[in-house]
Amino acid sequence: MIAKSMESYVKGSSAIRAMFEEGARLAKIYGKENVYDFSLGNPNVAPPEEIKQSIINILESEEPTFLHGYMNNAGYEDVRNTIAEHLNKLHGTRFTERNILMTVGAAGGLNVTFKTLLDPEDEVIVFAPYFGEYRSYAANYGAKLVVIPPNIPTFQPDLNKLEESITSQTKAVIINSPNNPTGVVYAEDTIKEMAEILNKKQQEFKTDIYLIADEPYRELVYDGVSVPYVTKYYKNTIVGYSYSKSLSLPGERIGYLVLPDELSDFENVVSAATTANRILGFVNAPSIMQRVVADCINSAVDVNIYNKNRETLYNGLTEIGYECIKPEGAFYLFVKSPIEDENEFCRMAKEHRVLLVPGSSFACPGYVRMAYCVAYDTIVNALPAMREVMEEVKKSV
Amino acid sequence: MIAKSMESYVKGSSAIRAMFEEGARLAKIYGKENVYDFSLGNPNVAPPEEIKQSIINILESEEPTFLHGYMNNAGYEDVRNTIAEHLNKLHGTRFTERNILMTVGAAGGLNVTFKTLLDPEDEVIVFAPYFGEYRSYAANYGAKLVVIPPNIPTFQPDLNKLEESITSQTKAVIINSPNNPTGVVYAEDTIKEMAEILNKKQQEFKTDIYLIADEPYRELVYDGVSVPYVTKYYKNTIVGYSYSKSLSLPGERIGYLVLPDELSDFENVVSAATTANRILGFVNAPSIMQRVVADCINSAVDVNIYNKNRETLYNGLTEIGYECIKPEGAFYLFVKSPIEDENEFCRMAKEHRVLLVPGSSFACPGYVRMAYCVAYDTIVNALPAMREVMEEVKKSV
Repeated sequence: MIAKSMESYVKGSSAIRAMFEEGARLAKIYGKENVYDFSLGNPNVAPPEEIKQSIINILESEEPTFLHGYMNNAGYEDVRNTIAEHLNKLHGTRFTERNILMTVGAAGGLNVTFKTLLDPEDEVIVFAPYFGEYRSYAANYGAKLVVIPPNIPTFQPDLNKLEESITSQTKAVIINSPNNPTGVVYAEDTIKEMAEILNKKQQEFKTDIYLIADEPYRELVYDGVSVPYVTKYYKNTIVGYSYSKSLSLPGERIGYLVLPDELSDFENVVSAATTANRILGFVNAPSIMQRVVADCINSAVDVNIYNKNRETLYNGLTEIGYECIKPEGAFYLFVKSPIEDENEFCRMAKEHRVLLVPGSSFACPGYVRMAYCVAYDTIVNALPAMREVMEEVKKSV
Repeated sequence: MIAKSMESYVKGSSAIRAMFEEGARLAKIYGKENVYDFSLGNPNVAPPEEIKQSIINILESEEPTFLHGYMNNAGYEDVRNTIAEHLNKLHGTRFTERNILMTVGAAGGLNVTFKTLLDPEDEVIVFAPYFGEYRSYAANYGAKLVVIPPNIPTFQPDLNKLEESITSQTKAVIINSPNNPTGVVYAEDTIKEMAEILNKKQQEFKTDIYLIADEPYRELVYDGVSVPYVTKYYKNTIVGYSYSKSLSLPGERIGYLVLPDELSDFENVVSAATTANRILGFVNAPSIMQRVVADCINSAVDVNIYNKNRETLYNGLTEIGYECIKPEGAFYLFVKSPIEDENEFCRMAKEHRVLLVPGSSFACPGYVRMAYCVAYDTIVNALPAMREVMEEVKKSV
């Protein structure tokens, strides 16, 4: 018998499996190239060329028991130092290696952060629509997720509702900009206003409220938009970063946490987070990949490829009559379902071999997410199918 | 403020940090080569030569978005299939890829197993001396660790005490053979007798009792001893494996779980474990390393190097007058402290620049652990120091 806490997950995962199996079935009948799968955030843009050569150079130059061995649970000090200096150069911060903790991707980093901070019954505030895994991560530590309803149609964070939602039990607020699933980027003024509210509430309740900035999409931005570095606006900020998207290395599980000196209880937070990395079973971020990301600190994937997809899909869909805000970052489009029940809309789209994710998965029903980290041809070929779906919708009204 | 659950860890980790700092201080005064550090289980034997070439070949031949991308949370199917067939060839089992789940090392695998099985207040039985992290892993899921006292001096599992300790709340029993910290290997008869007890108790309580075989040291055995494959003796067995020691890749965090078809509630266990891998933040085992361990399925580190260390340290210490059972596996010697308080003994040894771990860390006071995964010279040079410590002990009695 599995744990009771896992029973609902097992039920949920058979639904996801059913969706995958349906996709595979369609691919078998119509050919893989004729199924337009927008369901997964798995980067289709190759990692930068330098990655491969960097791995080979590191293998040729490093002593193998050092390269593949245990290091400090927080990661290699020189790697952490390289990352700190890179951030300082970009953002005018003053981090050192003691502010950086290498993690098993952003998902590992968030779990380390939650384990470090959260006691059962603590509250974590999140803005809908949000990445559904946050709910599981909070549940891992018995914490309560407090969801702020979506701010339609801009999907900017609703700061009035934030202020109302903070209680003496609020231990953390998660933000995710550039956002999955909307592609929205939070402007500097928004971050400033948010910081003001959090500072006021910290004083009011005499508590620490940590702002967790989950930033795996930081580098994927368009039209020259800038993403404010949150530690500069609010002292109790922890940044979670991942190279999954910026270097297209999601399978390698490599990322880091930024734990600034200004954090309340800084020494204990660092010590607890380093310990959490160990006792949660990560132990340390994969060793060779730590050295690779430091070696390739100035590399990035070609964002132009995603941008071309973004323009083509956004323009194509709005021209057909779909409603959608134009994303400024990440590789998702959050489209308004032309009928109220977006699950039914997903079913209709699937009949036309287009796979979408219902907004309910992000606590925002009535919308669907399209991940455009796919081949350009998939977008071009999916647009006529999306037009057919819209025509069907119009007929049925 | 950090979580209350992390406070005791933070206190404990400052003690460990103090030990490391003391080691670093001694190394600074006397030179690194004159400090004999037996405290860490970090392999000193290099990974097999094939590993490096395998990584390069894989980089040259695999499409990079496949190689570094997301795959099924359980791991690449072909990798899991290669491992299943390898186990079948070695042990006469009948595993397929559906029985293998790739994990972030054995520590990741154990956390996935615990998350899958354990509800708060469930009991997990462990035999002292045991790897101290088991206590943290059980605590992560609110479970209670039930410790069976050490069976001195053989350190074989006390099966009478096992039988007495099983209750209706017992969800799992952990065994670790070859053992950290004793080097003991459990014989086939022991496993058979254990299986009989567990079967009897399952019937008595109408429960499932899972036997978790934590086997990172399986390949490190000496004198031709064989390590029984536990799934063949007891249906409800889950094996946790790691390449950290067999291929000297501890920093890379690569291992797997074996979930046999015969497990109670098999389909749900597999589904829950795959989900647990995701929601605990591992997501998947590092992708390139999955492909490397499959490519190097027949490789192993040179165990002769450890064996030479084992013989020299064991013979040297017993000749001086220390008491110790000769380990049959792993790379640890568990030595009886010649004075009752082994912490005091560790302090005395440190004065002679020998770093040991007190047995209390493994729930077995009165003993110390020496990790002999060190340079051969360290052993040769430490023996005179250990002789001096013994002479001091004799004078003080």
